[in-house]
Parts: sequence; structure tokens; C-alpha cells
Amino acid sequence: LIREGGTSKAKRIVILAEGLFSVLESKTASCVIRYRADEVVAVIDSAQAGRTSEEVLGFGGAIPVVASLDEALAYGPDTLLIGIAPRGGGLPDSWRPVLRSAMLNGLDVVSGLHFFVSDDPEFSALAQKKGVAIFDLRKVPDDIGISYCEAGKARGHVILTVGTDCNVGKMTATMELVVGARRAGVDAVMLSTGQTGIFLTESGIALDRCVADYIAGGAERLVLESDAPGRWLIMEGQGALTHPAYSGVALGILHGAMPSCLVLCHQPSRARMSGYDLKLPPLVEIIELHERLASHIKPCKVVAVALNTFDLDDAGAAEARERMERETGLPSADPVRHGAGPLVDAIRNHLGRRD
Amino acid sequence: LIREGGTSKAKRIVILAEGLFSVLESKTASCVIRYRADEVVAVIDSAQAGRTSEEVLGFGGAIPVVASLDEALAYGPDTLLIGIAPRGGGLPDSWRPVLRSAMLNGLDVVSGLHFFVSDDPEFSALAQKKGVAIFDLRKVPDDIGISYCEAGKARGHVILTVGTDCNVGKMTATMELVVGARRAGVDAVMLSTGQTGIFLTESGIALDRCVADYIAGGAERLVLESDAPGRWLIMEGQGALTHPAYSGVALGILHGAMPSCLVLCHQPSRARMSGYDLKLPPLVEIIELHERLASHIKPCKVVAVALNTFDLDDAGAAEARERMERETGLPSADPVRHGAGPLVDAIRNHLGRRD
Repeated sequence: LIREGGTSKAKRIVILAEGLFSVLESKTASCVIRYRADEVVAVIDSAQAGRTSEEVLGFGGAIPVVASLDEALAYGPDTLLIGIAPRGGGLPDSWRPVLRSAMLNGLDVVSGLHFFVSDDPEFSALAQKKGVAIFDLRKVPDDIGISYCEAGKARGHVILTVGTDCNVGKMTATMELVVGARRAGVDAVMLSTGQTGIFLTESGIALDRCVADYIAGGAERLVLESDAPGRWLIMEGQGALTHPAYSGVALGILHGAMPSCLVLCHQPSRARMSGYDLKLPPLVEIIELHERLASHIKPCKVVAVALNTFDLDDAGAAEARERMERETGLPSADPVRHGAGPLVDAIRNHLGRRD
Repeated sequence: LIREGGTSKAKRIVILAEGLFSVLESKTASCVIRYRADEVVAVIDSAQAGRTSEEVLGFGGAIPVVASLDEALAYGPDTLLIGIAPRGGGLPDSWRPVLRSAMLNGLDVVSGLHFFVSDDPEFSALAQKKGVAIFDLRKVPDDIGISYCEAGKARGHVILTVGTDCNVGKMTATMELVVGARRAGVDAVMLSTGQTGIFLTESGIALDRCVADYIAGGAERLVLESDAPGRWLIMEGQGALTHPAYSGVALGILHGAMPSCLVLCHQPSRARMSGYDLKLPPLVEIIELHERLASHIKPCKVVAVALNTFDLDDAGAAEARERMERETGLPSADPVRHGAGPLVDAIRNHLGRRD
């Protein structure tokens, strides 16, 4: 567990993942269970009630999946976490009664939606009345400004995870890189840029929620705030340069963070852009595109490929890993399955060559 | 004059351009004078008081430059327009007394800053008390969402102006293209994406102010809202793909608008990125970069180069134009100096070939 920003006590979390509890479709839910399982008391998904997290995700042990908030209350939660992110980030009407009931039962509410629960008149009044807190993870500081191209002066090394699509595992790869680097004796911190990372590390800025002009400025600020000589500042990327909706955020982060090197995240079984009728470009093309766009501000290289092979068996994952290494000429590993070691080594080799 | 969105009556505008009144440094001021000179009664810039707009900008006729708002009041204004945009978009403290005095004297206030005048407690209270209006041009609709890759289905032709830097004349080129297209009998509308364009056309969305995730979605919405069979939807671009602070906005617009073709805007005398210690890449590289990034969502071509030669004499402008045509192999013209005809022809030829 990495908590860069906080010293908060352990929570008792019930996760709302109604209808969508799975590794990819409820990515906040699954990542919180992966990294803070001890604090999760139940998951709400009526379609899978009666199963355990282990049965559904392949990890998370005996955490029960229940049909409703009422059932979840039996496990004594103190927090309701919205664990699914509808495309676009709005609040579905069907969730309102669940949030209402959670607050009425004294639970804090944690949300990573673009919709701010704390700005909703009903919910803010209810929270005040019941003395519960609302955490909108995507609310950004109101004093973020434009980038002044200062991140390149960091005394640490900025490492940015980028992706072939959204929802390919950039957040997980970033967490694993930080853990792996620390295990190898490196002073490493995680710079969270999305709702789940912000919840897990209790720090960061939701760069996809910034004012558009300030994406790069927000990335720059994250770098400068955590900078220290020799430190690895491992920033979670967002979106993808080739994504039809989120490419702007991806490029803004690349230019604002001014990284020393990149780790490309990819799900080998994915051939098409999630939610859009578009083919994923070949990896070598994506790698070259990142390096080329970075070169206009500060040149950097993709030094490794982090795979997400959760949907493959061991043989399939090994085959995918070999194929990716052959295709890209870069070290490749699924940090969850194979460990982050090969990726950390690739970064270290690159930084060593540079120094 | 193009007013896509409004039927408002003529205003009597005093423009605040204190210390910065010039073609490039006060771009909102100079563009409003270029296109709505009839409605401008005075410009405030104490450093150049006593001169006329014509003397300072080379256009705008006898519009007087005055030293203070007090002096400007003699010309009977009904509106104060903030005509300069400090880097980052905040409100300098030194402007507060001017805004206060304007409202106390019954003037409406128009601002394109990232800072929202209407959200400032003092100014909103004062506006209410004095019955004046505050127009924050960068306030965006609160129901913009992500792009669904729908702009490519437009029945009209999306033409996007893009740039080698910010503040190179994209807005002006866009205006001139619309005027030139209409003159050539084409049904053309301007899709404004920045504060000055929004003021001039009384329509549009400040895409640099959107939630970062919604840049492309905002561009898509502008296209779909104005779409009609065969119509030219000429969208004003923002920033530049190679700009350290604003590249995200530029890429989001390129992917969200899904244009049929691009017009690249450039100031031939500019060798370095404005405000940053970075060289402008060669034009052919910038052209190829746009076409390559567009290709991942919807392929399109740069079909012409719009020049901003305000700082060159006729011979210098002719030389620059020839040089740009030689360098890029594309038709090139300064739409203000040479007329938009060659650029309109280039677009028409391209669309003709495509149909």
C-alpha cells in the first residue's frame, strides 16, 4: 500500500459496482480491492450476489458480493465508494437512492465521477445534516495554472506510464513500478493523476478534470511538488495519444511532465479501442508517436512495455510477452503476474546510461 | 462582421489594453477593432495615450487611445471589454479598480479571462446593484461531455485552422476564411473556440476552458450543432500540437472535430515559441505531425498555409509567401493582406477532389 499524501486511519469500505463488478468494467473497484482489500467489507452488485471477490476477480479473497446497500450494512461499513465509472462520468439516476441511503446510515461517500456529489444540493444538505463527509476525488485545486516548462528542471527522474488505450492498466502498472522500485532500494513516489490513484495514494490531481489549458501545468506541478534529487517520480498517465476522446489529456501530461522515460501499458488481447470502432495502431507506431511528440518539448524514450494479461493463462501471457518483446525490441512484463522487476531494471538501465 | 449566434444591437465599447495595446500583445483588442471597429469608442493604454488605433495597429481609424477609464467615459461607452490576456488568464490586481469603476458608471463588462469576473463576490454584487451585465466569454455550458466520434458523420465539411504556435492568427484566419468563402458563394459558418471569436460571432465554446476530458467532446458538439449538408464548418483551432502548455487542447480539438481538411496558420517572422525557450519545428514537420495524428481518428490533409505578415512590408510578405509555398508545396497567403481567395480555392479544390 502506498499512501503518499495521507496518514488516515483504515476505513471499512463498501464498494458500489452494480451490474459491472469485474476487473475491467469496474476498474476503481478492482484496483481498490487489489491494493486495499483489508479495508473493503463488501461489494454491491446484485447480478453477482453470493460470490466472493476472489471468485469474480481472481483476487480479493472472501470479500462478499451482496445484492444491495441494505445487505452491505450488516458488515458495518463506514464508507461507500463508487467503484464504477460510467462513460462520461455522470451520476446515473439509479444510484441516487443508494447514495441517499448510505448517507442516512452515516456512511461517508467517496466518488471519482466527473459529477461532483458534494455540489449536488440534495447530497450536500444531507451530508451536513448527517455529519458525513463527501470526497470528490476529481475535484482539483483551483490554483492550477499553465505549464512554464519547468518540470524538465526536476532533480529527480520523471517516469510516465502511457497507454495504447484507456483502461489498459496504467494505474496498476504505476503502483507496481513504485512498489518494485522501492523494493530495489530506489527512492520512488507515485504521482497520481486519476481518481483511483488519488484514492489509493491519498494524493495527486485528477488531470482529466483540470481546465483544458492547465493539463500540462497540473502535471508540471505534481512533478515539482514531489521532486528530490535522484528520486523516481512515477506518474500515472491518462488516456492515450490515439484515443478519440482523451488524447488531449494524454498529450498535455506528456508535455507538462517532461519525463525522462516512458513505460507503455498495453493489454495484448485488445485489438480495438474500447468503446469506439477504431483499431489499435501497432505498438511500434505508438512508441514512435510518443517519442516524436515528446521530442518537441523534451526528448525521451519508451523503455519498457507493461502488459495487462489478466485475461490470459500463464502460457498465453508468456507468449504475449515474447511477442511484445519481439515486436518492440523492449523489455516487457505484466507487473502483476511477472513482477515489476524487468520494468524497473529497464528504467534503471536507461537512467544509468543517461547519467 | 459575422454574428452566428446573436442579434444583439451595436455596443459602444471601451477596450482595456493597459500597457500592451498592439497587434499581438493585445490580440482580443486588435481583433475586436479589426472586425467591430464601428462599435469601439476608445482604447485604454496610458503608455500610448493621444495616439489613434490606426497609428498603433495600422487599422481601426481614429479610435482614440486614452490614459484611463475616466477619460474613456467622455466617449459614452456602454461596455468595458478586457482586451488583453495575461499569460495564464488571471485577473491582475491593478485591473480591479478599473472594473469597479466601469460598473459603478453603468458599463457592462466583457471578459475572456480564465478568471470569471461574474464569480467574484465583489463584482457580482456590484453588477447586481448597478444593474449591469458581466459576460465571461470563457464560461462553457455545463453539459458538455466526452466525444463519441460522431463529428465525422457531419453532412457539412469541417475545416479546422491549426497553428505553429499560439497567437499566430488562427482566429483572424478563420474569420477571413468564412468571409472569403461566403463571398465565393459557399454556405460557411464560423465555429468559435476562443474568447475573441466567441465575442465576435456571439456563439461558440471556449474549448481551452472545458474540463480536460471534454475538449474533443466540445469540438464534436460545435460541429454537430451547426451541421448542414454541404456547409463549410470552419472551426477556429487553439494552441499548437507542439506547444508546451496548450498542446492538449490542440490535439483534443483535432480529434474531436474530425475535420475534412486543415489550414495551417503561421507567422513567417517567428522562429521561436512565444514565451518559451523553444524553436518552432520546420513547417513540413508540423504539417506531417497533424496529418499523422489525425489519421488515427479520421485522416485529413493540410491544404493551405495562412500567413500572418503584419510585421513585414509588402516585399517581405511576398518573399515569405513564396518561401512558404516552396517549403510546403501548398498554396499560401496572408488572408488579411492578400485576401482569403487562394486559401478558399485550396479548400474547394481539396473538397472537390474528395467528393
